[in-house]
Amino acid sequence: MMKMVELQRLPVAFLNGKFLPLKEAQVPVLDRGFLFGDGVYEVIPVYGGRLFRVAEHLKRLEASLSAIRCANPYSWEQWTDLLQDLVTQNGAGDLSVYLQITRGAGPNRDHAFPENSKPTVFAMATPLTSLEKYQKGVSAILVEDIRWAWCDVKSITLLANVLLRQQAIDVGAFEAILVRDGQVIEGAASNVFVVRKEKLVTPPKGPMLLPGITRDLVLELASEYGVDTQEAPISVEELQTAEEVWLTSSTREIVSVVTLDGNTVGNGKPGPWHKQMVLLYQGFKSKARVGTYN
Amino acid sequence: MMKMVELQRLPVAFLNGKFLPLKEAQVPVLDRGFLFGDGVYEVIPVYGGRLFRVAEHLKRLEASLSAIRCANPYSWEQWTDLLQDLVTQNGAGDLSVYLQITRGAGPNRDHAFPENSKPTVFAMATPLTSLEKYQKGVSAILVEDIRWAWCDVKSITLLANVLLRQQAIDVGAFEAILVRDGQVIEGAASNVFVVRKEKLVTPPKGPMLLPGITRDLVLELASEYGVDTQEAPISVEELQTAEEVWLTSSTREIVSVVTLDGNTVGNGKPGPWHKQMVLLYQGFKSKARVGTYN
Repeated sequence: MMKMVELQRLPVAFLNGKFLPLKEAQVPVLDRGFLFGDGVYEVIPVYGGRLFRVAEHLKRLEASLSAIRCANPYSWEQWTDLLQDLVTQNGAGDLSVYLQITRGAGPNRDHAFPENSKPTVFAMATPLTSLEKYQKGVSAILVEDIRWAWCDVKSITLLANVLLRQQAIDVGAFEAILVRDGQVIEGAASNVFVVRKEKLVTPPKGPMLLPGITRDLVLELASEYGVDTQEAPISVEELQTAEEVWLTSSTREIVSVVTLDGNTVGNGKPGPWHKQMVLLYQGFKSKARVGTYN
Repeated sequence: MMKMVELQRLPVAFLNGKFLPLKEAQVPVLDRGFLFGDGVYEVIPVYGGRLFRVAEHLKRLEASLSAIRCANPYSWEQWTDLLQDLVTQNGAGDLSVYLQITRGAGPNRDHAFPENSKPTVFAMATPLTSLEKYQKGVSAILVEDIRWAWCDVKSITLLANVLLRQQAIDVGAFEAILVRDGQVIEGAASNVFVVRKEKLVTPPKGPMLLPGITRDLVLELASEYGVDTQEAPISVEELQTAEEVWLTSSTREIVSVVTLDGNTVGNGKPGPWHKQMVLLYQGFKSKARVGTYN
């Protein structure tokens, strides 16, 4: 059991080589994360003290860093050790690990990459929030995608996502689903799936959307189970008339959308395909929790 | 004259109500500027200790804050006092004032606007760099505009600008000129003007480009002088065959582009229109410097 003094230190964060209480962690104002949004991030769920799909997350991190031309400050092994340490220091259990790398602080504010700047590495682990409130399904709204052209890069330049998601929250909805040129892209912080004509469909990967780790796992598990899956464009009309609509993300897992722009999706309840998918996903998680599988 | 101990404190920054040495200024990692790029900024030149076009900058700041739905923490009078204080503490003279407002720090990392968060206000003043090196003109390259759809908002989500500008720097060029759907938009950190057929042309304001303060002043001064000015779309071909190409920004003023993607613009030297415009601009600055006009 943790002592009181230890609990007061929680959550513990990691910043440039040191562990410290999150509330004490600070970065210089000249950090390019603060001045330019010049950085990338990952969110990794932890079940029973074990990092979930950590290899997939580190692989995507590598791709994001490469896209913004920033060297990865650690090897995969170092990352895994560091993050596992962070998890332990936060009492293990079920957590959400957030990690962020920026290009570091330059000597002044200049768009150009600074010479010899050292990347800033920040990570924190906070308790996973309960998903019970999403069990009866959620509502979503459709909004125009105003983001940049490199949405496959998990960058911290998230102002568009923030503003679009807030639009959803303003009307009591859970998520904003982004539409570009009449096509459904993804949620402001999730991927989108639809069930249509006995098929599970999600938009194909490309520069317009984030290659979600949960998205890939859902496709993988559904396929193994014998479901007909398809990575194909989804029009707004196909979304609006789908039998089921889901949103996936690493911390929210698979959430059923039962109301879209105020209109009922399917019969207004999470559908049978969603129920089955959640079972498969929970099964997979259970194995990961005890380390059989990850 | 400043004492040594005072010089060691330079540059002095302003952070959330306090003046302190820039190198000591830090923000919590949970600041939304650091996590989401959730903030806006301005860069205001200072000549002879006087803020240049401060009303225009504060007006644009107001518009940016309004676009991202963040309340302005100060009145215009408070801003002017604060910035003038900052200028004085940095020895007055010729400076570049940078100010940034973020939505502040939330209790955790969540896209949604935090309730009751207090905006973070950061400002610094650093010496203006000499423009002498640009006198013979600069080179620029054309790149595809990959930014978001709200480029009229002066937000700190600048990763696209950083990457595009770095592309220019990599090939020894001064600036990247952004092209969207075959149209010239603006530079990664500047507005674009061309001289064509006895006319001075710059793209019209709209969501795709920043309404530059220097851009507006150039149009104003040129018009007063009797130049035929036009705010109209510029195609890539029109840029490539222009007699003169200029880039404008608050700290770089009016820079002549003499090489575009390796090809000579006009006769490869700053043109006669540019020389005249620089004279008009310097004249206006001289009056502002002694406070006759701003």
